[in-house]
Parts: sequence; C-alpha cells; structure tokens
Amino acid sequence: MTTISLPRLRERIETLARFGALPGGGVTRSAWSPPHEEARAWLIGEIRAAGLDPWVDAAGNIFGGLGMSAFDAARPAVVTGSHIDTVPEGGILDGALGVLAGLEALHTIQESGDPHTRPLAVAAWSDEEGRYGSLFGSRAFCGKLEAARLPEMAASDGERLVDAMTRAGFDAMRSPEAAAPEGSVAAYVELHIEQGPRLEEAGIPIGTVEAIVGVRRSWVVFIGQADHAGTTPMERRRDGFLAAAEFALKARDLVVKRGSGRSVTNFGVVHVHPAVGNIVPARGELLHEMREPDPAVLDRLARECVTLAKRVARRRQVQVEFRPVSATMPAPCAPRVQAAIDAAAADLGLATQHMYSAAGHDAQNLAAVTDAGMIFIPSKGGRSHRVDEMSDWEAIERGANVLLRTLIALAN
Amino acid sequence: MTTISLPRLRERIETLARFGALPGGGVTRSAWSPPHEEARAWLIGEIRAAGLDPWVDAAGNIFGGLGMSAFDAARPAVVTGSHIDTVPEGGILDGALGVLAGLEALHTIQESGDPHTRPLAVAAWSDEEGRYGSLFGSRAFCGKLEAARLPEMAASDGERLVDAMTRAGFDAMRSPEAAAPEGSVAAYVELHIEQGPRLEEAGIPIGTVEAIVGVRRSWVVFIGQADHAGTTPMERRRDGFLAAAEFALKARDLVVKRGSGRSVTNFGVVHVHPAVGNIVPARGELLHEMREPDPAVLDRLARECVTLAKRVARRRQVQVEFRPVSATMPAPCAPRVQAAIDAAAADLGLATQHMYSAAGHDAQNLAAVTDAGMIFIPSKGGRSHRVDEMSDWEAIERGANVLLRTLIALAN
Repeated sequence: MTTISLPRLRERIETLARFGALPGGGVTRSAWSPPHEEARAWLIGEIRAAGLDPWVDAAGNIFGGLGMSAFDAARPAVVTGSHIDTVPEGGILDGALGVLAGLEALHTIQESGDPHTRPLAVAAWSDEEGRYGSLFGSRAFCGKLEAARLPEMAASDGERLVDAMTRAGFDAMRSPEAAAPEGSVAAYVELHIEQGPRLEEAGIPIGTVEAIVGVRRSWVVFIGQADHAGTTPMERRRDGFLAAAEFALKARDLVVKRGSGRSVTNFGVVHVHPAVGNIVPARGELLHEMREPDPAVLDRLARECVTLAKRVARRRQVQVEFRPVSATMPAPCAPRVQAAIDAAAADLGLATQHMYSAAGHDAQNLAAVTDAGMIFIPSKGGRSHRVDEMSDWEAIERGANVLLRTLIALAN
Repeated sequence: MTTISLPRLRERIETLARFGALPGGGVTRSAWSPPHEEARAWLIGEIRAAGLDPWVDAAGNIFGGLGMSAFDAARPAVVTGSHIDTVPEGGILDGALGVLAGLEALHTIQESGDPHTRPLAVAAWSDEEGRYGSLFGSRAFCGKLEAARLPEMAASDGERLVDAMTRAGFDAMRSPEAAAPEGSVAAYVELHIEQGPRLEEAGIPIGTVEAIVGVRRSWVVFIGQADHAGTTPMERRRDGFLAAAEFALKARDLVVKRGSGRSVTNFGVVHVHPAVGNIVPARGELLHEMREPDPAVLDRLARECVTLAKRVARRRQVQVEFRPVSATMPAPCAPRVQAAIDAAAADLGLATQHMYSAAGHDAQNLAAVTDAGMIFIPSKGGRSHRVDEMSDWEAIERGANVLLRTLIALAN
C-alpha cells in the first residue's frame, strides 16, 4: 500500500512555517504580504521539485499539476489543496496542512507511478482568511468574483486589494480571468485541521465533513444621542452602547436556545462613538457573525435577531440599522466524496466521524462547481487561529494518507 | 441698585465665541491651542479695558484684579471666574459665561465706585475641560498639582502637556509656582450654566449649588480567551466582551437602584481585542465613570461595582482587572456663600433652587482652600458639551446680576 512520507511532509510544514514566523511561535502571513510572496516562490520550487507542473493564475492561486498544466473541460481534474495565507498571529497548520499534504500526496503518486485515470492538481488558494476578501482565490476560480466590487475591496486597515496585488506583481482587475472552464474539475477534496475539540474528545482520528456552515456577518448599529454624562438624568439617556450590550447578550442566548445546536454567534468588533469618558455614547456598533450548516435555520435566526434588535432599540428609545457585510450559504459536501473518504479511512483501519465544518473553507466555493468534500484531523485542545494551534504528527500522517487514498480513488 | 450691562456682556460673549468658532455654530477651543491663546490675548485686553489689572500666572491662569495685582495673604481677595477653554465641538457658554460675567461684574463695580472692603479678582482657569489634565489651572492655583506627574501628562491624541505649553510660551514644569499663598482667597463664587434640565423644567431662574459631585473613572477590563468564533462550542467560550456587556448593564442598574437618586454612571469608551470578526473577544475594556455628590455613597457604589464585576467575571470564567484613571472628591459648597447667593437672588426678586452640580468645576478645587460656591442658570433643553448649548440672554443677565450682588456682599 502506497503511503506518504511523513519526514518529507514535516520538513515542508516546518519550512513553510518560517515565512512570517513570530518570535514566540506561530506565523503572520497575510495574503499578498512580503512573507506570503516569499512563501509563494518557495512553494513553486517545491512543486517543481516534486515532479509536478507549477502555474499561477490571475487571482494568484498556485497550482501543481500531475498530468496537467492547465484546467481543461476535456480532461476533468481531481483537485486538492487549501491555502498558505494565515490570520494575524495564526498557527502553522491552518491551510498549510492541506496544501502541503496535497503536494505530498501528488508527490507520492508521481513517485510510485500508481495509475490515475484523471489528472490531478494541488492548489494554494489566495487570501482564504480574507484580509481583503474571504476565500478570494477559490471564489475567482469558481467564477464567483464580482469584478465591479474589486476596486473597493480593502483590508480593515484601509489598504486596498488592488494596491496589495500590484505590490505582489498581480493586476487585481484581471482576477476574474482565474475562473476555471466549466466541467474542468471532476472532484475536490481538502484536508484541514478541525479547529475545534470534537475529534480529539471523541478519540476519532478522521472527520468526514458533511457540510460547511454558512457565515453571515452584518453591522448592527444602535443610534441614540450624545449627552453630558454627568448632568443628563439617567432615565433620559439614549445610550447607543447599552442598547448594543443588551442586544449582544440576548442575541447570544437566542442563537443558543433557538438554533440547531450547531448554531454559533460572535460579536468580534465593537465600536462606540464619540468614545469620550464623560459623554453618553451616541452610537454602539457591533459586528455580528452567525454560523449554521442548515440554510433554513440560518435564515430564521437572522430574521429573529433583526426582530430582537428592533425590540431592544424600541424599548431603549434608540434607532437600529443593519448593514450586511457578507453572507455565505451553507455548503453540503458530495456524498460520493464523503464515501471515498470513509472508504480510504476504513482501508487504513481508521475510524471516522461525520461532522460539519464550523469554519468557512475554500471547499464551500468548490462545492458549487464540483463534487467537493473535506477531511478533518484533530486539533490539539481544539485550538486554532492562535500561535499554539497544533496537531500530532501521527494525526497529520494519518490525515495525509487518507487524503492520498481518497485522491487515488477519485482519480480512477 | 447697581446692575451689570447686558449689551456689554453679550458683546464680549459673542466676541469670545469667534475664537475657535465652527462653521455650523459652537466652538472648539482646547487649552493651549492657537485659538485659545488668541482668546487669552483678547481677554487680557478686555480686562485692561475694564479698568482692572491683568496678570497671568505660571499655570497659564489669567486674572483681572480690582484693587489687587497679585494674591496676598495680608489682603485676602474675593475671587470669581471660570474658564475659556472648551471641549471639542462645545458651546459658547460653558466656562466663557463665568469668566465674562465675572469680568462684567468687576467692570461694573469699578465703574460704579461702589465700596468694597476686600480686593476682587476674576480668573480664567487653564484647561478646565482636561485636554491634558482636568481642572489643571485651578489645581495649580490650589497647590494640588503633582510636579512629578507633569512630564507624563498628555492629551488622548498623545500630545504632551509640556509640548503644548511650550508652544504657547509657558514652561509646564513651573506650573506648581501658580499656587496661591495660603489664606489669600477670602471666598470664591462661580457662575455657570446648569448643563442639565432641572432649572428649566422647574421654571426657576437661579440654582444655588450645595455640592459638586465627585467623579471616579476607572478602566474595568475583562480578560477571557481568544478563540475561533466558528469552531469553539458556545458553552466553552470565555468572551471578554459579553462579560463587559453584562457588567455595564448591571452596573447601570446598580447605580440607579442603590445610588442616592443623584448618582449617575456612564461607559463612554469601550474597546475589544483582538477586534476581529471571526475571533471570540479575549478582552472587553470599559471606561467606567461614576458621579455622586455624597462621598460615602460614591465610595459604597464603587465598592459594590467592584463586587459586581468580580461576580460577573467568575460566572463567565474570565478575569477582571480594575485600573483607576481619576477620582475627585465630592466638594460641598460653603454655607455662607450659598447664603450670599440666596440673599442676592432674593434682593433681585428671583427664586432659587438648591441643587448639586453633576459636572466637575474649578470651584471644587477652590472649595479645598476657601469658602466656595456656584450659581447656576438654566441651560436650554439641558444641553451642554454640544454646539447648540445655550441659555436665554435674560437668564444670563439675571445670573450676572446675582453674581455681582454676591461678590459685593462677600467683599464687604
């Protein structure tokens, strides 16, 4: 039975971790940043060294082809991959694992000479973490990029996507050209750390993903009135922050009590204005995020939260406005890809657990154009988007071997 | 009966309003800024034109003396005044009224030749609004400035007091020299707009202030843990922001229900970290302000809020830290000054209401070194610290005449 080389994979994971490495561990390797572009150059070299054909598309996606050097509807490819960008102060496996285990799998197939009817490719999708636009590269590849919105896309520090891509040698306005020909992808499977505690706690080595959650983000803005914080009687204040605080606590409870049990919510960014100690806040602004794998439940929760916000605002005599930021639809994984993953794990004597992904992934874009699926391995302590994010090397080896066998099955 | 000249007072109020005037009304005239320093030069000219002796002390306080040109314990003076600096986008009366009505009162006494046993002075205290340090000038005058802290005093935009004062031609390190000789102030009375709605709603023209609230500000910092906002189960999150939100709502209720009825509280500045949409906030930080005229009540509320914050933190499995920012003691006004105000109003046929000041004022520093008091006039709609802050001119005239008669009584 052909298996991957853990030493080679580990060497590559540890080498990639040096691009954007932080003194205390972990990495900051934002899309299009200098460490990211250095990592891109290194990855292209590794693809070539593995005997694959490297190329980069107009959206900055990096590919390594085995039996292919472009996407062609006449010869649909089996694709794997993930991303090499990270969140600020992120870990060394989120994204990197899927790219390098994919590279390792194709490297192994290339060396073994095992037959594969379909061509294979490993992809590193641009800006998965969304410094400028979440899942940017895979959206471009799947033809979901809106050209008209490209000029206004910008990082939270204000840097525009077009400027960042220009700096890295790309023309952002040409990114939509990265769209793959219809029918050119036969299947997609992505290996990723779970980023949660469920597999580790269940003692199960492999997660077969059934669906990826939809994520909705919107600003909920409560607008009251600025007043002197000493002289304005308490009962007359129209405090935008206290309205936001009440909504956040109640929306959290609503999502927990009235959700599917898999529904989660977060208020990750909070602003008040004018933000002066002795002035009653005129505005309280919350970036409200909700995730849920069932589209109908997600829709219902979103509606109920709007009703809740309006009720809180009315009672506190403030206004409330909603400004949608982004919304991804929950993405079901293809049954035949799930079956291939289960069979590959069974061949290796590994138990699997069917689960949903509570994080967004490039696979959700691919799911719109091909049969897509994901393989999860346990995250230590469920930690992710942190410098101490990790998995055991044995777990990584098991995941990479399941990926290898799944790819072989899908390619034959 | 000698009375002030409203046309002359109005002319001066409208002229001072031009220094730092905003296009849409109101003023921004921060301490030591160019418009403030231009206003200082103008005010010195007006003091001289009124037949008073002008001087400026080491803390930048401006004085106009009638029968005096310096403070001298051998001849204790009756002092009035307020400040000419404003909050950003403030109104034209907060501070300006007390300085210019004081100037008008002394101008009137000077012209009338009415006898006064004690010398009189009008003061414009530096940086009352606290761009660099709240009630700076009156603290210096009352010998309450800590020289060691001067180098670190800075505005919220980072500009240091020493640099701002150097730009205006002052040496910040010499500010403590502004301390007046002990016993050199016989009494202090300050005219100010109420900055709240109580006098207007009661239909009472004159407020006699019995006490100025103490103000406590401290950062309350809830420290949980940053986690992936999709993959971390809701019940395991240790969300610093939600803890802060719960504390803010409960502390507001505590201060309302367990306070004196005069107690107020505000959360004017709120920060979360790391402030990323898909990361559970590790920290929620609140700038918590409380005001109350009774020292014992203020102490008790502060203790109860600490207990509350610890209880919220414990239940939510986060830590909480308290970082005191500032604390002023409630300042009682002298009964003899209150009596002089009441008598002056009665002479003029004006009703008075005894009240407390919910805002801090220079008078609270003076109250530590002499018999001090304050006269309030109604604020239209209770508005203050806003460009549309205003009082009727008739109300201003009434207030200035009560000030005039109070000063004459205290000086004889």
